[in-house]
Amino acid sequence: MDLAHCSLNSVTVKNASFSRLIELATRHGFGGVGLWRDAYAGNGAAAAARDLRKAGLRVSSVCRGGAFPQPDETSRAAALADNLRAIDEARTLDADCLVLVCGAAAGRDLAAARNQIEDGIAELVPHADEAGVRLAIEPMHPMMVADRSAITSLTEAVDLVERLASPRVGLCVDSYHVFWDVNLAGELARAPEALMSVQLADWVLPIHGQLSSRGMPGEGSIDLPGFVQLTRKAGYRGLVEVEVLSDRWWATDPADTAQAAADALREIPDPS
Amino acid sequence: MDLAHCSLNSVTVKNASFSRLIELATRHGFGGVGLWRDAYAGNGAAAAARDLRKAGLRVSSVCRGGAFPQPDETSRAAALADNLRAIDEARTLDADCLVLVCGAAAGRDLAAARNQIEDGIAELVPHADEAGVRLAIEPMHPMMVADRSAITSLTEAVDLVERLASPRVGLCVDSYHVFWDVNLAGELARAPEALMSVQLADWVLPIHGQLSSRGMPGEGSIDLPGFVQLTRKAGYRGLVEVEVLSDRWWATDPADTAQAAADALREIPDPS
Repeated sequence: MDLAHCSLNSVTVKNASFSRLIELATRHGFGGVGLWRDAYAGNGAAAAARDLRKAGLRVSSVCRGGAFPQPDETSRAAALADNLRAIDEARTLDADCLVLVCGAAAGRDLAAARNQIEDGIAELVPHADEAGVRLAIEPMHPMMVADRSAITSLTEAVDLVERLASPRVGLCVDSYHVFWDVNLAGELARAPEALMSVQLADWVLPIHGQLSSRGMPGEGSIDLPGFVQLTRKAGYRGLVEVEVLSDRWWATDPADTAQAAADALREIPDPS
Repeated sequence: MDLAHCSLNSVTVKNASFSRLIELATRHGFGGVGLWRDAYAGNGAAAAARDLRKAGLRVSSVCRGGAFPQPDETSRAAALADNLRAIDEARTLDADCLVLVCGAAAGRDLAAARNQIEDGIAELVPHADEAGVRLAIEPMHPMMVADRSAITSLTEAVDLVERLASPRVGLCVDSYHVFWDVNLAGELARAPEALMSVQLADWVLPIHGQLSSRGMPGEGSIDLPGFVQLTRKAGYRGLVEVEVLSDRWWATDPADTAQAAADALREIPDPS
């Protein structure tokens, strides 16, 4: 792919400072960056937005809002306040979307957690409307159901988007989370208007913990050219992010990691 | 649950000898055992069947056939021969079913792997018919898609059972593999005739590798009383197996592990 159509997610080079992230993205000709909120927390979203504008980089996503299931009212109110702040930051950064990592059940009741997630997103829509910020629900791999998200499949996420019925609410689709799904192509085709973010990471074994065992595109078992093609056929026209949470890659110099990411993306054919 | 309605899977106490497995299952009043093939490989299926009959233990499942996707004709023929042997062993043991761990894609083509799985099971049906052995497809957790099974959800497994359209082909449903699924209740209800095996293990974090991070019922985040109830409502009347692949429990004395399994099952209410 032409890197001008791609975005470097900050967590891929999470040990780089914000200015270093900009330098690495610019050096390789990325069209933009995806930002975890800790990446700009030091100087704030407004300063980050100025620096990015100067560098000519778009913000393809801000990560993250979410964490809707909460054990009590106090923590629920804190999560809501944080979600409203995240929406404001995404507006300041003119981000294509705010990614929602919806949160896991506090106990064993998945159905209750799913209801809290639906109610929690609905509660954010008015503020997102005012801010002009799109909310992208990220279905996460079922191995994260007990610690990160009770929304575990693309089917479930598309159903949720349909029930919420707001053009402000859509999907963040990460290859790592959904590639296993026998209905992948059909579900992507069902959601053409809803595709707000596409992220790439590869599936590598063994799993060490649930979060940061991912591979750079090409290192694992996912047909990533096919995945990118499916998202394009489904109508996605935004930047394709490389978001690799990897203890292995985090242990190398961010310059080498960014180089590897750029090389990996260039190996994927531009979707037709 | 009354342990007479439960079964102790050999892999839960995998360091126990076969005679020790029988002794442990009998001591706690289990109605049967589930057998991995290595558990009886030493003296063979016929000797094992005699010992089990003497002890009054049923065989709720034999694990495993499967491994249908293969890179070439030689390995495909070897897998077929092994599957036919597994069916014969299940007949000798008068097992309620042979569990199919269907296998992963040799490369990155999941659709091709799924076709090979469907063809591979269809090829076994005549021999299973002759032997009177039921074949139980086990949908496995999506974190095992690249190394154990391309059949990653209950929906996909039920669809496969419907396409194969033989009363000899059904499902093995393990809580660990399917609990995350938003459609769990609906899919179990869709498959009342097909439920051939129900297995229990709990979801505990962190994951260390994909295979053997499981918890004893009660140790993790799965609503196992609810799961057992759903399988009963869906019409399952067989033994409920405890099958816990756990490096942690394997490191303790099999007697302690069997005791813990018995205690855990007794904590689960008998389904109504």
